[in-house]
Amino acid sequence: MKTLVIVSHPEKESSHAQSFFYDSLKNLKQVTYHWIDDKQPLSIADEQELLLSHDRVIFQFPMYWYSAPSSLKYWLDSVLTESIYKDRLKGKELGLVVTLGVKENRFQAGASEQFTLSEIFRPFEAIARKCQMIFLPIFSVSQFGYLNNLSQKKLLIDYQQYLTMPYSQRLEMKEKWFQQRLSQMIETESDETTRQQLVLIKEELSDNRLHLDDLNFTLDEMRDIE
Amino acid sequence: MKTLVIVSHPEKESSHAQSFFYDSLKNLKQVTYHWIDDKQPLSIADEQELLLSHDRVIFQFPMYWYSAPSSLKYWLDSVLTESIYKDRLKGKELGLVVTLGVKENRFQAGASEQFTLSEIFRPFEAIARKCQMIFLPIFSVSQFGYLNNLSQKKLLIDYQQYLTMPYSQRLEMKEKWFQQRLSQMIETESDETTRQQLVLIKEELSDNRLHLDDLNFTLDEMRDIE
Repeated sequence: MKTLVIVSHPEKESSHAQSFFYDSLKNLKQVTYHWIDDKQPLSIADEQELLLSHDRVIFQFPMYWYSAPSSLKYWLDSVLTESIYKDRLKGKELGLVVTLGVKENRFQAGASEQFTLSEIFRPFEAIARKCQMIFLPIFSVSQFGYLNNLSQKKLLIDYQQYLTMPYSQRLEMKEKWFQQRLSQMIETESDETTRQQLVLIKEELSDNRLHLDDLNFTLDEMRDIE
Repeated sequence: MKTLVIVSHPEKESSHAQSFFYDSLKNLKQVTYHWIDDKQPLSIADEQELLLSHDRVIFQFPMYWYSAPSSLKYWLDSVLTESIYKDRLKGKELGLVVTLGVKENRFQAGASEQFTLSEIFRPFEAIARKCQMIFLPIFSVSQFGYLNNLSQKKLLIDYQQYLTMPYSQRLEMKEKWFQQRLSQMIETESDETTRQQLVLIKEELSDNRLHLDDLNFTLDEMRDIE
């Protein structure tokens, strides 16, 4: 699966969150990072070709006035021509990575921002729908600057999964994704001690899976007997 | 009350709806028409001054990908700085005049567009809320090109009222608005026959009002007796 990350951010250089995301993509194959603010005038043909050659499209941006910055709107208005949206994007996935200046729990009825992110980004859901794309749950990051080191590491994994993991909430998928990432890391790790630790983690994960499968099998058997 | 109409439309010249709206403003005092697509780079100070010197702000645009064209997003991102939105817009009104390429009844659950215009334009409601402005009901125009002459005339009145009538659903307000418009027309009308017709219409409207007031008074009396 190939993922295209379309980044809209007029002040990308000074954004810690954007640098963090960008750095985390270095080891991810199959991910294309594409900043659009410096691409004016847009080559519509190039942008369309890029869209068509990927399976998952991510719009990544800071929330400006309850939407994306104008560069993304310009991109949408220019690139999504009738020849493209009618059927050529069908079945692809569309996701949003949105950075917020305030805590996410403010976005709910009764709180200071009143509306949920699902409500605020309804226009993007409508775009996905019109293009017959699958709309992914919104990936939001609140107040990145205040995150401690551990929270940032967790965010990193969640972000990489959002970009590259087949869309599914199931535990097995998350495991499979970790297994693949671990295999890659083991292959390229030059330090022998670290490499052996990674191998151990991978084996532990496999053992856990087997144990869980056993439990599931036993449960199914019991249900059959009932 | 002074009204500012901020028009965002990259192809304004070729839009019949926009020409129609523009022409209808000629006789309306207190309305400032302001097309923003040719104003790049924006003079933020000028735009802010314009905002502050009006009581009602209308964003007028064709719906592009379930929102306004990018020129309006750029305007919002640039002009609504913290010094402005924190308290200097408080109590002003914000309205949307949106032209649609499809019938409005498509915008509902179960129909082809699935989401209502209230849902699609939630970000604008959120902007009004953040600026402590009063959000007016959305004024939408579907498939302007297909409207017959009579429908266009009705649209013209609705549009002028949306721009200039104090916000209220009450019948008296609509009447008062008509009375004022008629008085203006009577004043400037040079043709004597037309002028006398206008005077008659105005008198008829006043008589109706008196009759309605009588009925209301009688109804109130009856309620008191009960």
